[in-house]
Amino acid sequence: MPTDDLQHLRRAIALSQEGMEREDGGPFGAVIVKAGRVVAEGNNRVVVDADPTAHAEVVAIRRACAELGDFSLAGAVLYASCEPCPMCLAAAYWSRVDRVVFAGGRQDAAAIGFDDAFFYEQLPLPIEQRSLPMTQQLRDEAVVPMRAWQAKQDKTLY
Amino acid sequence: MPTDDLQHLRRAIALSQEGMEREDGGPFGAVIVKAGRVVAEGNNRVVVDADPTAHAEVVAIRRACAELGDFSLAGAVLYASCEPCPMCLAAAYWSRVDRVVFAGGRQDAAAIGFDDAFFYEQLPLPIEQRSLPMTQQLRDEAVVPMRAWQAKQDKTLY
Repeated sequence: MPTDDLQHLRRAIALSQEGMEREDGGPFGAVIVKAGRVVAEGNNRVVVDADPTAHAEVVAIRRACAELGDFSLAGAVLYASCEPCPMCLAAAYWSRVDRVVFAGGRQDAAAIGFDDAFFYEQLPLPIEQRSLPMTQQLRDEAVVPMRAWQAKQDKTLY
Repeated sequence: MPTDDLQHLRRAIALSQEGMEREDGGPFGAVIVKAGRVVAEGNNRVVVDADPTAHAEVVAIRRACAELGDFSLAGAVLYASCEPCPMCLAAAYWSRVDRVVFAGGRQDAAAIGFDDAFFYEQLPLPIEQRSLPMTQQLRDEAVVPMRAWQAKQDKTLY
């Protein structure tokens, strides 16, 4: 483990405390580091921004990409005060960070009333077994633009 | 199935086509409807916004919450031109929408080069088996602000 990992992770934990004290949202913080430089910091802002997607990791990923002008964070590391929820973990995958270092676990989040662990249980279920009702319709119509995109020559892949 | 479902789902598909043609990002669209009113629309903006979290559903959820001034979309329906990826599905859970209606499937997205299906396979794995390296450290330090949040009397739950 790189020696700076604990320093950045402690900063993520400090951000979790600061955000909670400001009443921005839940007690969660995140830091993104690339080539030894802190590119972005974030904390949970769900309440203050009225945005359920404003988890610390998503906030930090969005800020880091804005800072770098790139939708890819390849070469970067995400530090999170708590294990990323499924939304944030999938965001980390989409962002192409090299690795994730986290401190608290999903059960620690569950113990203080957050649904991270429950959502981890929900996502792998067949859709008919999920608590969130889902239905599929019009698949034939939806694949038309998808195939047009596939045939497009000048598209940007992400 | 409510009779307006197909109308809103077709609008989400149209948004997927329009966004692709504008080169905003991938061919994906979403619509959020509450009490019969279209509250927000979105399409994938990963490329144009340089934001890997700007999937159609996340864009629509963020816009809907901004429109309503509320981090909860309870009572609303999310229409998506394609099955939400794990990030977007977890965002839908966090947003508390009542239900999700989608058209294309994760395999349709995989067929045109997107990682949705792969990420669905990754998330349930034990962390040591994932393609994205993850490590846990400093759990004891992280739980201190989490417990402080739990003890806080005037907090806003989400």
